[in-house]
Amino acid sequence: MSGDKEMKATRKPRITGSELPNIPWEDRPEGYEGVIWRSRRNPIIPRNLIPSANSIFNSAVVPFAGEYAGVFRCDDKRRHMRLHRGRSGDGINWDIDNEPISFFCENPEMGNFLYGYDPRVCYLEDRYYITWCNGYHGPTIGVGYTYDFKQFYQLENAFLPYNRNGVLFPRKINGNYAMLSRPSDTGHTAFGDIFYSESPDLCYWGRHRHVMAPVGGWQGTKIGAGPAPVETGEGWLLIYHGVLTSCNGYVYSVGAALLDLEQPWKVRYRTAPYILSPQTLYECVGDVPNVVFPCAALCDTATGRMAIYYGGADTVTCLAYTLVNELISFIKDNSL
Amino acid sequence: MSGDKEMKATRKPRITGSELPNIPWEDRPEGYEGVIWRSRRNPIIPRNLIPSANSIFNSAVVPFAGEYAGVFRCDDKRRHMRLHRGRSGDGINWDIDNEPISFFCENPEMGNFLYGYDPRVCYLEDRYYITWCNGYHGPTIGVGYTYDFKQFYQLENAFLPYNRNGVLFPRKINGNYAMLSRPSDTGHTAFGDIFYSESPDLCYWGRHRHVMAPVGGWQGTKIGAGPAPVETGEGWLLIYHGVLTSCNGYVYSVGAALLDLEQPWKVRYRTAPYILSPQTLYECVGDVPNVVFPCAALCDTATGRMAIYYGGADTVTCLAYTLVNELISFIKDNSL
Amino acid sequence: MSGDKEMKATRKPRITGSELPNIPWEDRPEGYEGVIWRSRRNPIIPRNLIPSANSIFNSAVVPFAGEYAGVFRCDDKRRHMRLHRGRSGDGINWDIDNEPISFFCENPEMGNFLYGYDPRVCYLEDRYYITWCNGYHGPTIGVGYTYDFKQFYQLENAFLPYNRNGVLFPRKINGNYAMLSRPSDTGHTAFGDIFYSESPDLCYWGRHRHVMAPVGGWQGTKIGAGPAPVETGEGWLLIYHGVLTSCNGYVYSVGAALLDLEQPWKVRYRTAPYILSPQTLYECVGDVPNVVFPCAALCDTATGRMAIYYGGADTVTCLAYTLVNELISFIKDNSL
Amino acid sequence: MSGDKEMKATRKPRITGSELPNIPWEDRPEGYEGVIWRSRRNPIIPRNLIPSANSIFNSAVVPFAGEYAGVFRCDDKRRHMRLHRGRSGDGINWDIDNEPISFFCENPEMGNFLYGYDPRVCYLEDRYYITWCNGYHGPTIGVGYTYDFKQFYQLENAFLPYNRNGVLFPRKINGNYAMLSRPSDTGHTAFGDIFYSESPDLCYWGRHRHVMAPVGGWQGTKIGAGPAPVETGEGWLLIYHGVLTSCNGYVYSVGAALLDLEQPWKVRYRTAPYILSPQTLYECVGDVPNVVFPCAALCDTATGRMAIYYGGADTVTCLAYTLVNELISFIKDNSL
Amino acid sequence: MSGDKEMKATRKPRITGSELPNIPWEDRPEGYEGVIWRSRRNPIIPRNLIPSANSIFNSAVVPFAGEYAGVFRCDDKRRHMRLHRGRSGDGINWDIDNEPISFFCENPEMGNFLYGYDPRVCYLEDRYYITWCNGYHGPTIGVGYTYDFKQFYQLENAFLPYNRNGVLFPRKINGNYAMLSRPSDTGHTAFGDIFYSESPDLCYWGRHRHVMAPVGGWQGTKIGAGPAPVETGEGWLLIYHGVLTSCNGYVYSVGAALLDLEQPWKVRYRTAPYILSPQTLYECVGDVPNVVFPCAALCDTATGRMAIYYGGADTVTCLAYTLVNELISFIKDNSL
Amino acid sequence: MSGDKEMKATRKPRITGSELPNIPWEDRPEGYEGVIWRSRRNPIIPRNLIPSANSIFNSAVVPFAGEYAGVFRCDDKRRHMRLHRGRSGDGINWDIDNEPISFFCENPEMGNFLYGYDPRVCYLEDRYYITWCNGYHGPTIGVGYTYDFKQFYQLENAFLPYNRNGVLFPRKINGNYAMLSRPSDTGHTAFGDIFYSESPDLCYWGRHRHVMAPVGGWQGTKIGAGPAPVETGEGWLLIYHGVLTSCNGYVYSVGAALLDLEQPWKVRYRTAPYILSPQTLYECVGDVPNVVFPCAALCDTATGRMAIYYGGADTVTCLAYTLVNELISFIKDNSL
Repeated sequence: MSGDKEMKATRKPRITGSELPNIPWEDRPEGYEGVIWRSRRNPIIPRNLIPSANSIFNSAVVPFAGEYAGVFRCDDKRRHMRLHRGRSGDGINWDIDNEPISFFCENPEMGNFLYGYDPRVCYLEDRYYITWCNGYHGPTIGVGYTYDFKQFYQLENAFLPYNRNGVLFPRKINGNYAMLSRPSDTGHTAFGDIFYSESPDLCYWGRHRHVMAPVGGWQGTKIGAGPAPVETGEGWLLIYHGVLTSCNGYVYSVGAALLDLEQPWKVRYRTAPYILSPQTLYECVGDVPNVVFPCAALCDTATGRMAIYYGGADTVTCLAYTLVNELISFIKDNSL
Repeated sequence: MSGDKEMKATRKPRITGSELPNIPWEDRPEGYEGVIWRSRRNPIIPRNLIPSANSIFNSAVVPFAGEYAGVFRCDDKRRHMRLHRGRSGDGINWDIDNEPISFFCENPEMGNFLYGYDPRVCYLEDRYYITWCNGYHGPTIGVGYTYDFKQFYQLENAFLPYNRNGVLFPRKINGNYAMLSRPSDTGHTAFGDIFYSESPDLCYWGRHRHVMAPVGGWQGTKIGAGPAPVETGEGWLLIYHGVLTSCNGYVYSVGAALLDLEQPWKVRYRTAPYILSPQTLYECVGDVPNVVFPCAALCDTATGRMAIYYGGADTVTCLAYTLVNELISFIKDNSL
Repeated sequence: MSGDKEMKATRKPRITGSELPNIPWEDRPEGYEGVIWRSRRNPIIPRNLIPSANSIFNSAVVPFAGEYAGVFRCDDKRRHMRLHRGRSGDGINWDIDNEPISFFCENPEMGNFLYGYDPRVCYLEDRYYITWCNGYHGPTIGVGYTYDFKQFYQLENAFLPYNRNGVLFPRKINGNYAMLSRPSDTGHTAFGDIFYSESPDLCYWGRHRHVMAPVGGWQGTKIGAGPAPVETGEGWLLIYHGVLTSCNGYVYSVGAALLDLEQPWKVRYRTAPYILSPQTLYECVGDVPNVVFPCAALCDTATGRMAIYYGGADTVTCLAYTLVNELISFIKDNSL
Repeated sequence: MSGDKEMKATRKPRITGSELPNIPWEDRPEGYEGVIWRSRRNPIIPRNLIPSANSIFNSAVVPFAGEYAGVFRCDDKRRHMRLHRGRSGDGINWDIDNEPISFFCENPEMGNFLYGYDPRVCYLEDRYYITWCNGYHGPTIGVGYTYDFKQFYQLENAFLPYNRNGVLFPRKINGNYAMLSRPSDTGHTAFGDIFYSESPDLCYWGRHRHVMAPVGGWQGTKIGAGPAPVETGEGWLLIYHGVLTSCNGYVYSVGAALLDLEQPWKVRYRTAPYILSPQTLYECVGDVPNVVFPCAALCDTATGRMAIYYGGADTVTCLAYTLVNELISFIKDNSL
Repeated sequence: MSGDKEMKATRKPRITGSELPNIPWEDRPEGYEGVIWRSRRNPIIPRNLIPSANSIFNSAVVPFAGEYAGVFRCDDKRRHMRLHRGRSGDGINWDIDNEPISFFCENPEMGNFLYGYDPRVCYLEDRYYITWCNGYHGPTIGVGYTYDFKQFYQLENAFLPYNRNGVLFPRKINGNYAMLSRPSDTGHTAFGDIFYSESPDLCYWGRHRHVMAPVGGWQGTKIGAGPAPVETGEGWLLIYHGVLTSCNGYVYSVGAALLDLEQPWKVRYRTAPYILSPQTLYECVGDVPNVVFPCAALCDTATGRMAIYYGGADTVTCLAYTLVNELISFIKDNSL
Repeated sequence: MSGDKEMKATRKPRITGSELPNIPWEDRPEGYEGVIWRSRRNPIIPRNLIPSANSIFNSAVVPFAGEYAGVFRCDDKRRHMRLHRGRSGDGINWDIDNEPISFFCENPEMGNFLYGYDPRVCYLEDRYYITWCNGYHGPTIGVGYTYDFKQFYQLENAFLPYNRNGVLFPRKINGNYAMLSRPSDTGHTAFGDIFYSESPDLCYWGRHRHVMAPVGGWQGTKIGAGPAPVETGEGWLLIYHGVLTSCNGYVYSVGAALLDLEQPWKVRYRTAPYILSPQTLYECVGDVPNVVFPCAALCDTATGRMAIYYGGADTVTCLAYTLVNELISFIKDNSL
């Protein structure tokens, strides 16, 4: 409790985990008014960076060992969805394995990898947890971990199918592991709320609570958590995607919310406007037009700088920047 | 293995729980060849047994205190779905409360009863557990219990939405509580497999395993567990419903399977034919035509008699009979 | 205002128009608790009363010249939807023309009768107005009148397509003609609210106001006005149909509401439960199973008796009874 | 041409094939006005006539060896669709094999029987041809034959998937075998016209011509040929089914047409009204409510009597009667 | 009548209203053959001209007080649809208010602005009428006016929901106000004809007539009126949009028609080909790909020049040019 | 048989027909690794090459008389689908007729051209056969031929509707003409397998065999044959398209297979990855975004060079290159 008070006082974003290397950064362009701005180097990872890939997007990036490591969604040229490991010195230029990650798994039925997509990586306690949409008689939330980005281990799926966008919190809540997810159906789900669940052991999950529902406009069809929530003095900073259904399909935009620190299923603030929507050619044209889809954020506590990694048009990997304190102010000033 | 052999030797269905009173029974009609036969008194509970009800069906009945008790789905005249308590001396003539059950629940958000339907009751350890389709931002599996059918307590929902047909096993498996369920979507779900999950404490659930998928014919669209599985020397006897989609809608029939006793997600036998399908006027005409939907079975170990309670046309409650050993033989002889 | 008060004092239903002949009547059956009860002679009009008919249902009946007259939906054996004239001495035994009504219409394009269904008849000022679902580049509200049930005249359609269930009020409101209707689409519309509109001259319509929306349960998909509203001291008594979508299609039930006398778009009371739902064989089996659809009500001011004509399963014509004061009390006691 | 004239002169229906035994017959009921009337013994074959059957319907019956033989659609209790052989002395009481027909087929891939339904049988030249909806990577038209209703042989499928309701003409047209069929899709097809095709050898088919399209009302969604066309002086008498889509599903009714004798893709007359629609309990209640589906007709040239076999509610087999000359007159008098 | 004759003689387009300022103009590009050509400055209004906007498109522009004024659809960053006022000296460079228009409305229920989109402005008699798609329990036609583009007043909605693309004629027809509209449903309507309606007072509407239906090709799914019709000697010049449904969604193109001057529901000519279709990047890429949607046209009587304002990809505002007499000739030469 | 052995030995692609002129060619770009590479001149035919065209794509090109000739899909500005003739000296620069081809056809009903699209041209025996999707009461396979690309003759449609992508083999198989096709439905078909059929005379077709089904990924929704198969020592080289359904519509990619030479319904190898997918602006933006659709391939036996013509975004015509032996190796190395 006292820690909570302190955090509120300082209002600094805290990043749990290893020391941050030199975070990618570009200043806000002259005259640009948005709270988030795109990298001029976008897309930072083209669709064909590795020979096996049809597309590389929806990346999950963390600081690791003085550099950066990540798990990337690389759809191959069969258009099968796979998870690949990447390493980078600067967070911009990436070295991605041409072959997908192979997870060790005790249970062979569970570990029979059918497909994996939209990974998130979260440093928690002593290791890097990976969650992803995992194919097991339908999409559900796969859970794995690595200590070193060399060996990867797969645990039990968190939930029954059908689920997507499972995102771990970077610390335990009420003594439990905590995850956001978006229950789905078997196809291009036309609905979707964010729920919260807890687990004492990352095996059994319960205490499910509803967090947020679609509310119209850019977030009228469905919503899903993006990067792992960032703990701040104002609550958990959650960047999330929302979907609008036009007559020509889905449009994926990005918003943000502040969740209660101890009861994260309680939404304190939530942006009515989007903070990023598909407007550039690399976001509007590609395998799935009109998609911006954030999966990771690097945050530098000292400067408050945040670098948000997001997929463009389900085809390429992009980068956008913000300042955490500005973003928090924006959320509070533009809340539903 | 040797235990399994022993069980096969005895081939007696085992019922955990209180002593069975006089189980409802009617002999197989002359010349009737099916393994299951209907009660001549069907529908044993008419739609209007209590003034508040539009329909009474999909009943969950157990032996209790030398008589029978049950939890009934009673849709009221708003067509809202509610759970009502019932008592009976003979399992045929029921006294059902005109008002729905009110559950005690510690968490007010969880206990805010929106709707409940298709209950199952399962005696386990020291009390009667009730599972049902519970409205919490969509359908999911509500869990509650009672010791006395007077006070009812509600626990955490077992799973995230969207789920239906949650059915507990009557004893722990591998030291855990175990449940079958059928993940769904938000509407008249057009798909549905049966999954298995475990919990150490009825709060947190995991170790989810796929059990059975639809396979065409009467069970081609979706399937869901019916009464609580009955432990037999041949495995868990699971009576389940399957759905066929005709050009004029869903047709709900009944089949049966034998699941491995220790690894119940492994199907040992499963009927290719249905064992009951909607053929009588009270099954074919009503609020939802062409539905037979089993939710409870009483089983007398001494005689092997089984009385299956099922809903007819989502309108009335019906009864059918079988002999467990005959049913087991039928499953093995007519397996997929 | 004072008139309103007076009406509330008397609480007598008022019927505008000619003297009522001997209204059809049967007392409530012994032990029956519902506020509405069915005629023992149901269906009072079989599907094949006239040789040309496939079905006769959704009738519009009024007192006329010491007897009764009506306009009936008679689908012919092409399954084309037509309006036929009927006469009856007692409201039970009907003489229906084998040929459909032919309307005089000044405008040939407007009067080119494609199809007409679900008529209502309303005595207003000096004549009997007929409204129906009229085919003019899609379904909309046709308007016509007759003085004598011999010559029929057709006016302009009230609204643009797509609309159904247009029902006139039996007197002017605020000096204007007033109509309830249910905007629709081109098919088996899966939505539908009741709106109110006014016209100075039955040609031009405006001042459209929203009256009621679906609210779940039996009235969760769409709702539509039934017989012409009956003026009572408690407001306009509106009997209406509501539709629930089961996995096997639509179920049409009947409810009732009290609308403000001077601002009829304001709902004062509205039944949460239905007052009639399809439960008999002639309501559950037919061309469209599970339909009760009221289109007319005869009301005797002296006794408060009301006879409600409704279609059964889109196939036959049925009759049900109530007492207006009891119905009003029921609406107020069971309001949403 | 002169032959055509002669036929018109005689106006006798001609039946190619063996001598007709005692055709089933019941006189038109007193006061009944329809051109077709039902057997008082309906349903003449109950759903459970043989132990393996869930339902027996959509029968294909021909005179054979002084008695009657037929191929029946018997859905088994898996709800798999199978073809069974039947024999009868009087056309009313049938002896149906409990096991399905096994066809000899040279090509094992073609002869790998997945499912078969809605058979028709047609005597042509020297044998009895059977056509049915055959599962080969989707529904298409299977073709087989028998000389003796003991050995059955399967030929090549007539067409590419997806097709249903393939019906042979009982004699060659323009020196070719001729077939009507209704191209479909993979599911509960919501469209469907009747086409005509020719073949020199029952292996290769071409010269495809459009015959009839849906036209609204009872035949507004799709239409399909029923029994093999009957050659008459007025043209080929084609009894066919038509489908209307109500808000609660498909309704199958029966109509009739007269096709040009030498250019059977030219429709000379076609009934605007149906001649039979589902109105009895055994037609309106069953596995698929509201279906009458004709597949065979016996016709006695001497008397002009015709016995039409049709399926009721996709569950039972029924019989209806007409007089061919009356039916022809009806078609001409009630043509579109 | 004599005026009509005169108009036909001169065949000059007439613009009712204030004197036209310097109409935007660019000559047809060298070698370009189409009857309409795009501005080289397209898109003339970018999506982010004002800070609050996600997009600015589907503009309604009129000459006003020696300059130009307009009402613009500005979707904000919530993706809520709003109407904003704009002013311009040259019709190219616009000054648009950052805040939406606030209408005065006597009736608070009617004036409770939920959303407004796709406005049209029409000078008529003494003021500028605005019509738009107005949210009132579904989309319908909102009607308002302004004298000065400072104060805006809202009248009754013209029609019951569900309707879109309501467009006033710039003079009374037969003594009545006249409007074209396109009845719709609640979603991304997959059908849509243009109808004509009249009103004596802009409050009550009737005399509804069908004008045009979709006819395949680029105008195969639905059609809707664009700018207010322009009166010419050849009839009302109506520029309209048409929609084709590809496997990847709707494609909006533009066509034109000539309507009878006195009976505008009678179509004299209508282009079989489109006159503009989405072909540039700013029309093919954006919030809704493949949309050109005209809402306004400026026309200079002296020169016959016409400047058409249209939305591109539901994102930006574009301009195209034509010469009215050429366009009329094109319509007549390429009529359906 | 010995011929087959010989072919396998040489492994040279054989082209039946006239001598090949100078085949279009560009070397593989430096560093490009794919087995197919795009022309730097793409799109080689813009959408507006001829005045009447909205778009020109899905071309069918063959060597002819020392130059090249082709049949092109030219959608006109009504968006009607038409077939146009083209001639070219180099295969790159095309002279396309502004008016569509007019076929001579003996049967006027068959020859009543409604629409034609996605043509293929195949030299066989003594003439150039054209197959296309032909409108005859729905899409089916039209068949025609020309000797000189001046006079065009139309034969009987090959199959009943509904079918698309009919592609002839360039020589007889088993003494019969042979065709691949993809049975479809009436709309934007969401399924589709490739089937094989034979004909002795191009009039009657039969011996239908299933060839390939969708298998997930880029070819998960439906597949269809592309250019006429090319005979090689390794089997028939079939380039085909496959469709993936994203949340924003269909994505058309290209793969390849090797079919057995004598039993072409037997697939020997089939690429798991695509060999071309929509990635450039002219493939991703246009009338139908995200489409590459091959219809023709020129192959030079001497060099093994192949030039593949394909449509981009259903708007323009593009060219890609490969070496046949490399492509064959790729297919074998990357087979499912």
